[in-house]
Amino acid sequence: MRLSRYFMPILRDAPKEAEIVSHRLMLRAGMIRQEAAGIYAWLPLGLKVLNNICHVIREEQDRAGAIELMMPTIQLADLWRESGRYDAYGKEMLRIKDRHDREMLYGPTNEEMITEIFRSSVRSYKDLPKNLYHIQWKFRDEVRPRFGVMRSREFLMKDAYSFDLDKEAARTSYNRMFTAYLRTFARLGLKAIPMAADTGPIGGDLSHEFIILAKTGESAVFCHEDYLSFDTPGLDVDFDDAAGLQAIVDKWTSLYAATEEMHDEAKFAETPEASRLSARGIEVGHIFYFGTKYSEPMGAKVTGPDGKDVPVHMGSYGIGPSRLAAAIIEAGHDDAGIIWPDTVAPFKVGLVNLKPGDSNCDAACEDLYAKLKGQGIDVLYDDTDDRAGAKFATMDLIGLPWRLVVGPKGLANGVVELKRRGPGAPEQLSVDAALNALTAS
Amino acid sequence: MRLSRYFMPILRDAPKEAEIVSHRLMLRAGMIRQEAAGIYAWLPLGLKVLNNICHVIREEQDRAGAIELMMPTIQLADLWRESGRYDAYGKEMLRIKDRHDREMLYGPTNEEMITEIFRSSVRSYKDLPKNLYHIQWKFRDEVRPRFGVMRSREFLMKDAYSFDLDKEAARTSYNRMFTAYLRTFARLGLKAIPMAADTGPIGGDLSHEFIILAKTGESAVFCHEDYLSFDTPGLDVDFDDAAGLQAIVDKWTSLYAATEEMHDEAKFAETPEASRLSARGIEVGHIFYFGTKYSEPMGAKVTGPDGKDVPVHMGSYGIGPSRLAAAIIEAGHDDAGIIWPDTVAPFKVGLVNLKPGDSNCDAACEDLYAKLKGQGIDVLYDDTDDRAGAKFATMDLIGLPWRLVVGPKGLANGVVELKRRGPGAPEQLSVDAALNALTAS
Repeated sequence: MRLSRYFMPILRDAPKEAEIVSHRLMLRAGMIRQEAAGIYAWLPLGLKVLNNICHVIREEQDRAGAIELMMPTIQLADLWRESGRYDAYGKEMLRIKDRHDREMLYGPTNEEMITEIFRSSVRSYKDLPKNLYHIQWKFRDEVRPRFGVMRSREFLMKDAYSFDLDKEAARTSYNRMFTAYLRTFARLGLKAIPMAADTGPIGGDLSHEFIILAKTGESAVFCHEDYLSFDTPGLDVDFDDAAGLQAIVDKWTSLYAATEEMHDEAKFAETPEASRLSARGIEVGHIFYFGTKYSEPMGAKVTGPDGKDVPVHMGSYGIGPSRLAAAIIEAGHDDAGIIWPDTVAPFKVGLVNLKPGDSNCDAACEDLYAKLKGQGIDVLYDDTDDRAGAKFATMDLIGLPWRLVVGPKGLANGVVELKRRGPGAPEQLSVDAALNALTAS
Repeated sequence: MRLSRYFMPILRDAPKEAEIVSHRLMLRAGMIRQEAAGIYAWLPLGLKVLNNICHVIREEQDRAGAIELMMPTIQLADLWRESGRYDAYGKEMLRIKDRHDREMLYGPTNEEMITEIFRSSVRSYKDLPKNLYHIQWKFRDEVRPRFGVMRSREFLMKDAYSFDLDKEAARTSYNRMFTAYLRTFARLGLKAIPMAADTGPIGGDLSHEFIILAKTGESAVFCHEDYLSFDTPGLDVDFDDAAGLQAIVDKWTSLYAATEEMHDEAKFAETPEASRLSARGIEVGHIFYFGTKYSEPMGAKVTGPDGKDVPVHMGSYGIGPSRLAAAIIEAGHDDAGIIWPDTVAPFKVGLVNLKPGDSNCDAACEDLYAKLKGQGIDVLYDDTDDRAGAKFATMDLIGLPWRLVVGPKGLANGVVELKRRGPGAPEQLSVDAALNALTAS
């Protein structure tokens, strides 16, 4: 993409309203724009990040056997009356009346609707297990939305729902998602620690939050520091191997880890003092097993092997991609701006032309731009008339993994300058060596 | 995907509520499920189709220089008061109050919001032209939603918005989208004819609807039949060549074409009688040039080359991917079910195991399944215990381009059966020949 044709409204100054670093950097980098309290437009750079996050989530959901569909944002109030949550949910639910005065709502979550879809067509235990997910906009009418997309009202959520014949099978489905989440967050460059959690309005008796550690985290967390060096389950995980999945979950829940709400000082004291970690955390995922809480009142039953109808055992599994974009920045930035993990970066390379109009610089840049694109590498080509300092500042701010600088002096010596985002020094390389380095990286 | 693990709730009988063939077939094929009047969930098969349609739209928008972002679904009423449309829009707009009694709405379209985004950051004519688009859910509270996703209340829309310094440049932006639309619909397997159109609540003085012909079309259309054999602009279109784009638009508007609303019998009579085509049509896209209708009241101005501030000239360009899914079925089906164009098909191949449990059949199918997937070919593998007849009926119903049948008799003779969806006869081929045919197709 040529920057001269792109839409990336950079702000030179930090906006006053932004209290946390991710919000500041997302506004400054032209990733998002607030359209109302807690409601944001995702500008082109932000949307690319959001899509990259969703791509990783989707790959890991699919790998774990979950099947994607897409439920609508607007739901009928009557559906929520079946589970008893319509009255219970409170003011966070955005309630709506249509032109015929029918009561509707903007879905804050989808347990009821997916249960309705399931019960309408699945009849036999032979069709189980099933795990259905979607990635769709949700609305929760927070009293005080803040921290940008970290706590917004309209937000994107991946929510998956599992259906099983009994508690044991449901536990395996839970473990599948637990494992998929570990893989997802690791691929997004995050160290996420599963912590036993309260189930809140979703309900149920088994639940974990996935928490990443960040100085600016919203709440205090307490855990054994060995979690930070645990290996993530590999590509070879067998999602059909119930015992193998249980072993992964057992390992990742073997040491102490708790959010403030669930913290138990006495139990924490059993962890050797040198290994006790007290830190701030950000919740990036939340999974629940809630048995027949929805299937029982809503009549989502299958015929078991013995010919009897039983309500299915369910779980739900949420990740917020929009919130993750902010969390990844909280975990990866420096004074100059964002430092994206490769999997999430909106472009892999920022190509900087130091002297547009200079025929050598233009020719070298056009050649590099075409060759990188030909290799399937996503490049942002700064072909604008800005000063060199401003161009470097912009590249640091938006946090692309690689910066490739082409200037008249370097070209006279047959070199361009390649730099990895972060503390390292730039390297002077021939054009071919730079291309090879980027292709190999 | 193994059908035994998929979620594709086929209905054997045509649902009573469905009045048109696309609605019937989408329900029967398990593509969609109604969650409220005019509000649908897209089940896995339907979502794959929807994503494929969006993929083609996105490629052609990007090729034409449009830049993708993502605006939220919920908007502030005050934003629409700036343009004067909040009171004018009527009951089709879903109006909402949040917990603080602020007036909001579920966006039926985004002219106001994109104008707000544009004015907040673009200051100079040097940054023009710009064309920004998103693919987002919209809501229009139709009095009587019907025809399934053809006229639903919550629907997906690609809406692009162009910004130019003056009318002449805006005309080129309009022509870019006109050309991109011709390419988009052709790639989706549709013969779309641009017809001069009324501008309705969007406003402006230049507008075209893109209409496909289908017996079940919602309205009468009248055109010169030569349009049906016009060549579509190729991959080599230069979207920076204003004269070339104008020539394309001139050609595609040179003959008579009008919807019922704009029809002029006297003008139509100038077309030779043998070339006059009266048919039913379905609107699949609509483009508008409306000058400064929004930029003027909302203060979206840039500084021109003469140093003076002028309101920008705008256009908007809509395609409904959810409606297109139905329109493509209206244009392509037979008595047995859907006939998808290759670009849209949810899977390229349906692999049918006639005798699951037979070790030869299972081994041959597993081998074919792995090899096809290895080639990047999307396969739906029917590994269920259904009868052969039911399996064939399902494959015909869901309309995949190719059906590959593996049975014990054929295997004994070293052959499998390959059939293209449609009237042709099946072919008996060796496994390798079948693989080669599918890879080459």
